[in-house]
Amino acid sequence: MLNDIGATTVKVRKIDRQQNRIDDDWIVQEEPLEIRLKYKAGTDWKERQLSITMRTPGEDHDLVAGFLFHENIILDRGDIQAIRQMGLAGRSGGNIVEVVLEPGRSVNPVQLERHFFTNSSCGVCGKASIELLYQQLQPVPDVPGKITSQLIRSLPDRLGAEQKVFRQTGGLHASALFDRSGRLLTVREDVGRHNALDKLVGHMVRQDDLDMSDRILLLSGRISFELVQKAIVARIPVITAVGAPSSMAVDLAEKFNISLIGFARENGFNIYTGAERIHYD
Amino acid sequence: MLNDIGATTVKVRKIDRQQNRIDDDWIVQEEPLEIRLKYKAGTDWKERQLSITMRTPGEDHDLVAGFLFHENIILDRGDIQAIRQMGLAGRSGGNIVEVVLEPGRSVNPVQLERHFFTNSSCGVCGKASIELLYQQLQPVPDVPGKITSQLIRSLPDRLGAEQKVFRQTGGLHASALFDRSGRLLTVREDVGRHNALDKLVGHMVRQDDLDMSDRILLLSGRISFELVQKAIVARIPVITAVGAPSSMAVDLAEKFNISLIGFARENGFNIYTGAERIHYD
Repeated sequence: MLNDIGATTVKVRKIDRQQNRIDDDWIVQEEPLEIRLKYKAGTDWKERQLSITMRTPGEDHDLVAGFLFHENIILDRGDIQAIRQMGLAGRSGGNIVEVVLEPGRSVNPVQLERHFFTNSSCGVCGKASIELLYQQLQPVPDVPGKITSQLIRSLPDRLGAEQKVFRQTGGLHASALFDRSGRLLTVREDVGRHNALDKLVGHMVRQDDLDMSDRILLLSGRISFELVQKAIVARIPVITAVGAPSSMAVDLAEKFNISLIGFARENGFNIYTGAERIHYD
Repeated sequence: MLNDIGATTVKVRKIDRQQNRIDDDWIVQEEPLEIRLKYKAGTDWKERQLSITMRTPGEDHDLVAGFLFHENIILDRGDIQAIRQMGLAGRSGGNIVEVVLEPGRSVNPVQLERHFFTNSSCGVCGKASIELLYQQLQPVPDVPGKITSQLIRSLPDRLGAEQKVFRQTGGLHASALFDRSGRLLTVREDVGRHNALDKLVGHMVRQDDLDMSDRILLLSGRISFELVQKAIVARIPVITAVGAPSSMAVDLAEKFNISLIGFARENGFNIYTGAERIHYD
């Protein structure tokens, strides 16, 4: 059985001290998605397979837009001429998504070919070096005004209320975007934490709503290097997470002027970098 | 400050209802590791960069051996002529590991070149198709005898006692290998769940202890497709996890005869596939 939010049921044998019975249980869906790119080089159209990633089906267009944005292949919505879902399987219309890039816009086919050569499809893997990656990133600018500690403490509960698939399956990561008044703008869930963030930012790309200067990103789990990297590309100044950051996540946040907050819950939180953006009340 | 088990301290501003103070806190280390391969093709030695992965430094030789094993580049310890750690940074001697493959053994240079062409470095990304992946895997054989539910319920606590870095930082995934008497054989931790499993199996490769027929794998978190895939390559018949499985993890476990257990804790657990290996007591 399949519902419309990325979960499916299976027969499960549940064992505890009292019983051993077969029951239906919800599990999160995980399926491969192939991302293909079609772009004009000179007078010819070229097609390339960009990556295959395991993801939770649903919001696939957001996922692909966010992936291309975080990989610096597109800069905004105008670079996308069309997004097409293909293939047989998958509830959202297929497990292949082809993106047609708008010719003569930000995308430079020569640079794109170099990108294919030096980068693989997922995060830092295959990147020629971390230093090269650093050179491609810009510090996130400051904006006036502070965020109160009370607001930050309230965020996990606001996300929890929206995390539908997680509550059903226990198997999903979530990324959510709030404004500085604490209003939840968008939430996306996926088996992969990087996919959840790609979906979230991809949604904003497709909405043409990329001014992130007063936005707060909330992550349901731990903060890896790769998630901070994506937030820098998206220019989101504040990352709050329910889990712990890694050392390189902290280094990267420090270097690129991001406020990094971990272990966020109702009773308190830890600030690792950028404490000057937070007002303690 | 740096200890010897993959954690480091940072200055953290801790905020709760009562206070706002700066304190030292432990965070998990995350650094890039470049894996290089040196192998003989005909009469020439060739060198290739295989991947860059983010990992928690420590047990890097295990990580690389496990990665090569799970990618089917090596079949056993005899395929490794030498492992060398290079580079400046990193407490374990450097962030580059070069593996020299033994000439004239299982590794076929032609096949290796094809591998580089069709696969990228991480999991399913870049793999030509899931079907191709399926063709490369064999079902895990049955062995006589059952595992008691009591034993399975006891595993998470046994792992918890050994998860040193996790307790310090809250930022790590663990993979552990038990025998059927419940004895903990090896545990490995990493920021990446796939790295933790690579380190664990890589250790067994390097110990030349690859008969997994009576082994139980315990994972500290959720069960993704990729973790089941690695367990199939390693021929581990039983996967137990503290977290939830994804739909494709369940499909893959079913197809390749693996017993998949989720939500394992002292009071009970869920069996998704392969219930015939478990005795309810």
